[in-house]
Amino acid sequence: MNILIVGVGLIGGSFSLALKDRSDLSFAGFDLDQEALLKAKKIGLVDEVFSEMNSAVKWADGIVLAIPVKAIKELLPVILDKLESHQFVVDFGSTKNTICETADSHEKRDQFIAAHPIAGTEHSGPDAAFKELFVDKNLILCDAEKTDLHKLMLFEDLAKSAGFYLTKMSAKEHDRHLAYISHLSHITSYVLSNTVLNKEKDGEVILDLAGSGFESTVRLAKSSPRMWSSIFLENKEMVLKGIVAYKKELEQLETLIENNEEDAIEEYLEEGRVIRKILK
Amino acid sequence: MNILIVGVGLIGGSFSLALKDRSDLSFAGFDLDQEALLKAKKIGLVDEVFSEMNSAVKWADGIVLAIPVKAIKELLPVILDKLESHQFVVDFGSTKNTICETADSHEKRDQFIAAHPIAGTEHSGPDAAFKELFVDKNLILCDAEKTDLHKLMLFEDLAKSAGFYLTKMSAKEHDRHLAYISHLSHITSYVLSNTVLNKEKDGEVILDLAGSGFESTVRLAKSSPRMWSSIFLENKEMVLKGIVAYKKELEQLETLIENNEEDAIEEYLEEGRVIRKILK
Repeated sequence: MNILIVGVGLIGGSFSLALKDRSDLSFAGFDLDQEALLKAKKIGLVDEVFSEMNSAVKWADGIVLAIPVKAIKELLPVILDKLESHQFVVDFGSTKNTICETADSHEKRDQFIAAHPIAGTEHSGPDAAFKELFVDKNLILCDAEKTDLHKLMLFEDLAKSAGFYLTKMSAKEHDRHLAYISHLSHITSYVLSNTVLNKEKDGEVILDLAGSGFESTVRLAKSSPRMWSSIFLENKEMVLKGIVAYKKELEQLETLIENNEEDAIEEYLEEGRVIRKILK
Repeated sequence: MNILIVGVGLIGGSFSLALKDRSDLSFAGFDLDQEALLKAKKIGLVDEVFSEMNSAVKWADGIVLAIPVKAIKELLPVILDKLESHQFVVDFGSTKNTICETADSHEKRDQFIAAHPIAGTEHSGPDAAFKELFVDKNLILCDAEKTDLHKLMLFEDLAKSAGFYLTKMSAKEHDRHLAYISHLSHITSYVLSNTVLNKEKDGEVILDLAGSGFESTVRLAKSSPRMWSSIFLENKEMVLKGIVAYKKELEQLETLIENNEEDAIEEYLEEGRVIRKILK
């Protein structure tokens, strides 16, 4: 089977790497960033590269879109138009609802699979890709009942080979959960980073005073701005709801501190600490 | 030299462990939590334990207070009262200004050293202590010019043996910097945890959808509520300023998202991403 990876960065590159030992698969890359594309070829993420979309799609049996959500929404209908009946296209975007809506109106909807790998690092680009990124990670398949069963099973086999375990939910449900659990984490991390950088102009001071705690809390602020600005807008409604809920929580703690309510503060922190029972 | 560790938890226990190979030092423990105290003796954090403060202080040459800030402020004057001229007392509290104010009015001020180890984990208690916690970590000495030089040098030697490198600043400066770099990290982490826990009642869903990103961002919410409620109140003024600055930043991003300003969002995230140049 020929797999075309569109977007040879952290996610696309790691998917290809994870499957490269399978002799029944060939991998090719396509990327608007020519430098990244050549790099991906050079470091062996893909066997060959295409500089032109039509021939790339024609070559492929399965196409994986590992690019920002906005780009997926633009490219997906174009690719669906070109597909022959045996081909399928998967997207690895971090929001799912608007992407699924885009696909829903297309006559080849059943050749499309909406998937979200719950995996990543704060790094990006072909160099960041590694073989084990998806091992024991969750791949969420959204609105999976709208995909042709044979194609879905073909892809599920690939995903399991790459190390994923699979869960299924609706695209709407996905975006609602992820707004709180993932998107809000990124927002609070970027905001913390900007707050500290605006206050502390001297990087040396930050480095000297930053324990591993600060480092861990701002780690996500190292993520790709292009990717995340796109995610925040794609999941705008839910993300804004998340921000409002977060501000309310923050103001609750702020008031307790203002009023010196030590016991109530401790209780508030105890509630938050319950997370350790979940994440271990 | 006899070192008394008051508070045999993560910090006090690790300090003792880090120095236990030095044959010129003996370590004893004191803790209001009798269970922790016995544990500390059992797992070898200290050689002996005291159940009564007077005899413990009399035994010691140097006393290390590794307990919450509020407890330090209560205990410090009591201990200073008891000290003979050759003895010294160090505090490892996470805020420094109110502690130093407490000491400043005492006639034995020059037998006191205010120190803050920029090291820790989200775990607490004797079991959490480990030998290497302070290796290559920063120990901030505050208002060090107020301590007798000979005693300061004695302690600096211990601190370096434990693995620390030393920096010095005023207690006020310390609290101002830490409010942003450390205390605010803990606040945003606890608040994020509470926001998500209030929204997602099902721990299984959180676990399935939480990538390493969420885990890293809420890690600090696993920290000790008793210790952190005390820190927030001790550094109240600066912490509240930090929260106000943070809310302003958050609302700036919120407005950009509301208005679909994708380029400006990306720019905002790029600014936050500068942190990767500092923390590497």
